Amino acid sequence: MEKILFGIHPVLEALKAQPSQVLQIFLPQGALPEKKRNIYSLAQQHKIKVHFVPRTRLDVLSNKENHQGVVAIISAYGYQPLESLLKKWKTSGRKALFVILDGIEDPRNFGAIVRTANTAGAHGIIVPKHRSAPLNEVVAKTAAGALAHTPVCRVQNLTSVITILKKEGVWIVGTADDAEQNLYSLDCKLNLAVVVGSEGKGIRSLVKKGCDFLVSIPMQGEIGSLNASVAASVALYEIIRQRHYA
Amino acid sequence: MEKILFGIHPVLEALKAQPSQVLQIFLPQGALPEKKRNIYSLAQQHKIKVHFVPRTRLDVLSNKENHQGVVAIISAYGYQPLESLLKKWKTSGRKALFVILDGIEDPRNFGAIVRTANTAGAHGIIVPKHRSAPLNEVVAKTAAGALAHTPVCRVQNLTSVITILKKEGVWIVGTADDAEQNLYSLDCKLNLAVVVGSEGKGIRSLVKKGCDFLVSIPMQGEIGSLNASVAASVALYEIIRQRHYA
Repeated sequence: MEKILFGIHPVLEALKAQPSQVLQIFLPQGALPEKKRNIYSLAQQHKIKVHFVPRTRLDVLSNKENHQGVVAIISAYGYQPLESLLKKWKTSGRKALFVILDGIEDPRNFGAIVRTANTAGAHGIIVPKHRSAPLNEVVAKTAAGALAHTPVCRVQNLTSVITILKKEGVWIVGTADDAEQNLYSLDCKLNLAVVVGSEGKGIRSLVKKGCDFLVSIPMQGEIGSLNASVAASVALYEIIRQRHYA
Repeated sequence: MEKILFGIHPVLEALKAQPSQVLQIFLPQGALPEKKRNIYSLAQQHKIKVHFVPRTRLDVLSNKENHQGVVAIISAYGYQPLESLLKKWKTSGRKALFVILDGIEDPRNFGAIVRTANTAGAHGIIVPKHRSAPLNEVVAKTAAGALAHTPVCRVQNLTSVITILKKEGVWIVGTADDAEQNLYSLDCKLNLAVVVGSEGKGIRSLVKKGCDFLVSIPMQGEIGSLNASVAASVALYEIIRQRHYA
């Protein structure tokens, strides 16, 4: 889940490039030279906890590597910018496959979807800043290693991402119980982003409006609703089937 | 979800016949006469939580019925005999669809599979007595009400059930990572029972031997394994697709 970063330059870079992934910083006790004061003030600015410890503790933390008097604990899996996801798609030589989660607040469902998205070869997951489970240890554990390969992008606003994706030639498919079209009549050979809503509320109306297609997953039994991770899996695997096995 | 059972004889019988369905036991505070000591020791043996409460609490729990100083909370959904599952199939007028779980020990996965089996219109789930999550509250909760409609049958021995199902004209399909055939080349219009193994170990070799077909679910990403509930869902929905939407 976490990794150790050490050395003045690497820690400064991490603080500048991805401060949200820096969890804790360890500095030596005593007066700080200028660069370490920079590290300290950047940490303060981003509300990252700084511990002042004896040098021997830094030796232990860094496994006796050349830590230059600074060690940081970094979240091993962070959010990625949308550009990374688009790049992953474009360099893959395959049709786009993105997953947009709208209101998945259960970290187990989130993690399970990341896992299936990976096995389905998706280029990334997009989640909104609000109404979304944080990218924490439960997510990582349920994702069973998939977070190391399948990037998650967190955005302020799903509708603007949908606009960007459309401009890139990606079609937006929402899953909705009340859709007239069913999943199996969708043309999955298009570049696609699949939107999955929360179990209770489904996809929010503004996001729904942004969808090019709305499809339902057929229900044969009495229950009439699927777990969000199962809905995502069924949709992703229909895409795989049509693209590779139809 | 749950029902209340009371009286010495009924609770003793439940503990002997179906201990896995007894969720909690309430006994009065103070010294216990012999039969209640039997109840207590059976509960201990099956790791069922026993609460020692004032008699007035037992009155409330049993709705002032003649509780004889013992009240139990029982899982409302019990196992069904195989005959019920076969009957459900034969009276449905549809092709058979059973799910056999071999070694699903996580109750959330178990519950999630019951839920998807219901939405896919399956006629029932078959689990072995050993190496299987008990039918408890977590299963019921994750199944989101499906246990009231989709029967679960628990058997001593999966291989003998497989023999019975084959005699009834049901084909047995196992899901296995290393299968040569993939799911999408399977003829799903046959009467089918889908076998899903545990994530780590897969289907046990004796059960695997009993399968008429072994199919793999394609993996496009780096992870190379699916959650058991997702694997079951993808297989069940491919069956639905071929039967109703192909």
